[in-house]
Amino acid sequence: MSSFLKMSLVLRRANRVNQSAMRGLCSQAQELERSGMVLPNVAIAGVTGAVGQEFLELLEARKFPFANLKLLASARSAGKKITYMGKEYTIEEMTEDSFENVDIALFSAGGSQSKKYAPAAVDAGAVVVDNSSAFRMQPGVPLVVPEVNPEAIRAHRGIIANPNCSTILMNVPVWALHKEVPVKRIVVSTYQASSGAGAEAMRELEQQARDWVEGKEEVKQDIFGRQYIWNLFSHNSAVCLETGYNEEELKMVKETTKIFDEQIPVTATCIRVPVLRAHCEAINLTFAEPMDEARARSILENAPGVSIVDDRENNQFPEPLMASGKDDIFVGRIRPDLSQPGGYGLELFIAGDQIRKGAALNAVQIAEQLVQNARDDATEGVSVGIKQGSEAVFSRGFSTSAPEEKNED
Amino acid sequence: MSSFLKMSLVLRRANRVNQSAMRGLCSQAQELERSGMVLPNVAIAGVTGAVGQEFLELLEARKFPFANLKLLASARSAGKKITYMGKEYTIEEMTEDSFENVDIALFSAGGSQSKKYAPAAVDAGAVVVDNSSAFRMQPGVPLVVPEVNPEAIRAHRGIIANPNCSTILMNVPVWALHKEVPVKRIVVSTYQASSGAGAEAMRELEQQARDWVEGKEEVKQDIFGRQYIWNLFSHNSAVCLETGYNEEELKMVKETTKIFDEQIPVTATCIRVPVLRAHCEAINLTFAEPMDEARARSILENAPGVSIVDDRENNQFPEPLMASGKDDIFVGRIRPDLSQPGGYGLELFIAGDQIRKGAALNAVQIAEQLVQNARDDATEGVSVGIKQGSEAVFSRGFSTSAPEEKNED
Repeated sequence: MSSFLKMSLVLRRANRVNQSAMRGLCSQAQELERSGMVLPNVAIAGVTGAVGQEFLELLEARKFPFANLKLLASARSAGKKITYMGKEYTIEEMTEDSFENVDIALFSAGGSQSKKYAPAAVDAGAVVVDNSSAFRMQPGVPLVVPEVNPEAIRAHRGIIANPNCSTILMNVPVWALHKEVPVKRIVVSTYQASSGAGAEAMRELEQQARDWVEGKEEVKQDIFGRQYIWNLFSHNSAVCLETGYNEEELKMVKETTKIFDEQIPVTATCIRVPVLRAHCEAINLTFAEPMDEARARSILENAPGVSIVDDRENNQFPEPLMASGKDDIFVGRIRPDLSQPGGYGLELFIAGDQIRKGAALNAVQIAEQLVQNARDDATEGVSVGIKQGSEAVFSRGFSTSAPEEKNED
Repeated sequence: MSSFLKMSLVLRRANRVNQSAMRGLCSQAQELERSGMVLPNVAIAGVTGAVGQEFLELLEARKFPFANLKLLASARSAGKKITYMGKEYTIEEMTEDSFENVDIALFSAGGSQSKKYAPAAVDAGAVVVDNSSAFRMQPGVPLVVPEVNPEAIRAHRGIIANPNCSTILMNVPVWALHKEVPVKRIVVSTYQASSGAGAEAMRELEQQARDWVEGKEEVKQDIFGRQYIWNLFSHNSAVCLETGYNEEELKMVKETTKIFDEQIPVTATCIRVPVLRAHCEAINLTFAEPMDEARARSILENAPGVSIVDDRENNQFPEPLMASGKDDIFVGRIRPDLSQPGGYGLELFIAGDQIRKGAALNAVQIAEQLVQNARDDATEGVSVGIKQGSEAVFSRGFSTSAPEEKNED
């Protein structure tokens, strides 16, 4: 374990998220250096994927404080050189020995890779922020949306799980409302982009557009086994034969309750639409007590990570193109539900970038919060190890047939 | 008024829809001729539009019984000749004098044309089946989905309204369930095709695909004022500034209650997706009493106008491409709602052709039921005029700025 973590990462009291950590952290690196703190060593596991690339962009854009950076990928990409922030890096093959001296490991290489290598990273002393679904529902692994439950980060035992993209996008605005008036039930329908299923899926959709324009009789349909251009279909994750819900829907159902740390009845219908990037969701809420429109609007206007786009006169509401490449979740169509009189119901329509806030940004925010916690603790002179209990958290070598490097996991 | 209507169309007792009338009516013409009944004269108002063209296809395919056919359109198309069922027709300009000797007028020329010419058609003795929203919510005008409320047809006073496309598609499966166990609340999110906004809208979406493939910096966006390819957006109908619902959503809310003839709380979010034809809907139901999955499935399997596509193992569910050009509404993702335990909730996902069952087919089914009613009455020797009260039903010359010839009205 590096001196950074030895000095500072702690298992301690809950700590509400720091707004500067959420919004940009431009001065975190400078502040850490000024305070004499050692900067963390960071590894990106799965750097060649869409989320891995987004990690690189975000670390630079948000001036994330790090001393050294390790870029890990599969053997196929190992040896490739990339220039990043003025320095040349060589991509290394991820092995169990990759994590020596790593303090924070951002994982987005698919569930089976996470199951294989996250334990080694934790053994080596790193804190893993894992974007896969491998550990999310495991007891003892915090499942964190920094706008919702940043305090859960301190309870980690080596691994912190990043929620499913659709779950993150829904939870941010719904939590803001729920804090004020309890939400009793959520009905959500999604409109999910091709890139959630990985770069290949997005390229196939683009290729189908070309095939269609060229008038080809049959378009290429290797990934989803169906025509995607001018079509839409139920989410491609496996469907539970018993409940009829697909995995994506069950993630939204189960993860929301874990993140909110209370039972929230959720039902979801997840649909893949011919959009390249950014997901949308129609969200219908039932409240325990009346929540009037003006109050809902004011709460959402002040919610971190939320931008309101709600112009009834000009019919301007959230759209995926508007949200692509953006940090915030766009929220609009805010209106009392006509089917639930008395202010007990509210409708929302949201758009958010599932690669950014739905994956990479959320993970980087978690990492920022880890650094923030360390700084807070250093200021208070606290120094406790992070290893306690970590061995019990995961089972090793578990293999899965889940497709790798898709960001929607 | 022609001898057909004089002889037979009546304002009389309710009459449940005849299944043969719903399913194909292959022998209606022959039966009418055999019975010595005079065949009706039919006019199509707006024959050059997408729904008008679909009327022609359906009258032929379903062997709709008619003596003469009149094809009406705007002055722009008048004089054009078309060959239909082996006979040459000349398109005539629609005027107030167009409806002499017409028994049944199928209108789909937009709301303002309906308001202008439907009264003249009724004055001339025709029964108007109107696909626009002009008269739908007017008291005294039956709003009919033949699978739901065919008996309402008999109460007409010259005009029968065809509901909004999204409403029709939702009402058919939901009504089948509601008849068995009352539905207390509906939450619906739509995925609507470009062609619902008219042929021009569909062509613009196709053009945007070409522009995108050619790498053009900016795609043509005259109709919706935004990029549509790789995007989606809140339905383009005007948004009510007070409620925040757009017109399409309010149609689903209000029309369902009129068609079901009882108060059904509905909330809707209507979204335009980059699909050329056929709408989808995610429908969440709350029942007054438990409705288990097996029962729901059995009801839907036996519901007229419904095809089940619900293969969990192979992830095969309703898709717009599957529904395009088809009569039936495809229903799948049938599953108990996890957020409403005890069997009180059910999820459905449907796909239906909004030009066919959502517009033309529903209107032709209404016309078939009119003929069926006339035949039933002739058999019983009843002969009553249809004119009673018709003058009071509509106000003339009302103009609207609604775009014409879109099928989604």
